[in-house]
Amino acid sequence: MSRNICVCQEFLSDAHKRQIEDTAKAAGFSVRFFALEQQAQAAEYLQSCEILYAHSPELLRAAPASLQWYCCSFAGVDPYCKNDGIFKNPACLLTNSSGAYGVTISEHLLMVTIMLLRRMPEYEAIVQNHGWSNQLAVRSIIGSEFTILGTGNIGTTFAQKAKLLGAGKIIGVSRSGKSRDAVYDEMYSFDHLDEILPKTQILVMALPGTPETIGIMTKARIGMLSPASLLINVGRGTAIDQSALVDALNAGQLGGAALDVMTPEPLPKDDPLWSARNLILTPHVSGNMTLGYTCDKTVSMFCEDLENYAAGRPLKHLVDRARGY
Amino acid sequence: MSRNICVCQEFLSDAHKRQIEDTAKAAGFSVRFFALEQQAQAAEYLQSCEILYAHSPELLRAAPASLQWYCCSFAGVDPYCKNDGIFKNPACLLTNSSGAYGVTISEHLLMVTIMLLRRMPEYEAIVQNHGWSNQLAVRSIIGSEFTILGTGNIGTTFAQKAKLLGAGKIIGVSRSGKSRDAVYDEMYSFDHLDEILPKTQILVMALPGTPETIGIMTKARIGMLSPASLLINVGRGTAIDQSALVDALNAGQLGGAALDVMTPEPLPKDDPLWSARNLILTPHVSGNMTLGYTCDKTVSMFCEDLENYAAGRPLKHLVDRARGY
Repeated sequence: MSRNICVCQEFLSDAHKRQIEDTAKAAGFSVRFFALEQQAQAAEYLQSCEILYAHSPELLRAAPASLQWYCCSFAGVDPYCKNDGIFKNPACLLTNSSGAYGVTISEHLLMVTIMLLRRMPEYEAIVQNHGWSNQLAVRSIIGSEFTILGTGNIGTTFAQKAKLLGAGKIIGVSRSGKSRDAVYDEMYSFDHLDEILPKTQILVMALPGTPETIGIMTKARIGMLSPASLLINVGRGTAIDQSALVDALNAGQLGGAALDVMTPEPLPKDDPLWSARNLILTPHVSGNMTLGYTCDKTVSMFCEDLENYAAGRPLKHLVDRARGY
Repeated sequence: MSRNICVCQEFLSDAHKRQIEDTAKAAGFSVRFFALEQQAQAAEYLQSCEILYAHSPELLRAAPASLQWYCCSFAGVDPYCKNDGIFKNPACLLTNSSGAYGVTISEHLLMVTIMLLRRMPEYEAIVQNHGWSNQLAVRSIIGSEFTILGTGNIGTTFAQKAKLLGAGKIIGVSRSGKSRDAVYDEMYSFDHLDEILPKTQILVMALPGTPETIGIMTKARIGMLSPASLLINVGRGTAIDQSALVDALNAGQLGGAALDVMTPEPLPKDDPLWSARNLILTPHVSGNMTLGYTCDKTVSMFCEDLENYAAGRPLKHLVDRARGY
């Protein structure tokens, strides 16, 4: 019986397809590619497949119990870790593409950090009004202190860039309270958040969506941040009490915020978030698949693990489905 | 007769004033401070002064023929280099504060560069409309090539940061075609611009306003830039044929632009620049005097040269009034 791989992605170039085909062939697999709009055909082919490379909960639900490995091309895999029967095969391996998004999302983070430090939401309002006023007090990355909540590839890549640009102390906060990266001047686990937030200047949130991170920024914790502080989130919207954040921004209890993720997505047309004060909103763009580097890296990570899989070695990008990342 | 210094600045803290007073005293000078709105009183005191530290052409015009040194707290000194009799004493020394603005303006440059690479003008329009669309193709600083037109402190500080963040080839273009900074992969003089512009991905202009730079980006040269290229200007608005730039942006002949300087300033309410396509306009904010670092550095530079002046040494930040910087 042939060993088959079903690939359903929108971003693959011809070179990416050749790379996957060559790796599959060497590993003894056949591969077929489907565009996002060919989901029905993909689901049909999937019935004979051992491996699925996609980013679709719907397609995964259509997979047979014989599926052995699902590789998700996204970094966030919360839709697949809910223990809600999405895997017919309970032993099916799940890998993600954490590591592919650090480059693009860290540049987004750098952009919104400087925009907030340099008062761009206010300047943009002045310019829209064809006004001329230029004495708002700006701040610099140099010497600014960061609290990175979520010290995976995304948070750490950003921290490294901030340090290169002269940032002051960088505190990392993660589930384990540990990081191997020397960029962090101090590391803490989640249960130290209440001590850290009152001293935080710039809070950068890059957390996966897990039971431990959902709602981690409660109303009380948002209230611990100082009026000059900035809050930036590129992880999951569920991490923040969003209506408390809107209230805090509108009351001037925070210096500003930038959200690339929110709840729900898409955000309803009449949500109060759209008009919150000093808020930079972007429609979940920070890790989109239009950057060549991200696509190349994602494909390379899949191919690397395909070689591991075929050789019977452990998969490098394996997700702990109970932990959620 | 006492030797006097007139200081007319809006940004000085008490610590800055003490620093200037202490330096002046050690050098055998008296100093008096005036706020911007005390220009009349400043002009009166100025009649007995040897040194003026300010950023006001009007005040300089009021200075006596006995003024020996005018230190301008700005980097751009084009208003003082027109040979229009603004100096009653033709031998009066002119220094500027070039070197104080690299930090703040390079962060502005980084911000607008990433905003343009990541399509923020378009995303901001989507968000203003409460829309949800996130598949615009973005680009990264990593591998992007820069042409830095004007390789002084501002252009070079930015080039160094871009390189730290993974930029590709960085070409410097200056009057002399020379730079001591290793950040430039290639250096050219102005007369090579026509060869460089067609290959330019991101053009960063940080030129002083001199007879050689006024109008340097002619309509023809704007036309040499490719449709994917970006144009950023933090030097002087006079460097660009502004109406040709508006036309090029609106016709999609350029990928985007960011102007912090323009002509005239303030920009008239009905100027077509306000509504040009893919343009980030800021009201000359990139080097404002609200950042502590900039103020500290400016004051230190004045004090350093005050010691030089008193000791009869050459001034470090001397401007060549004929050259214009």
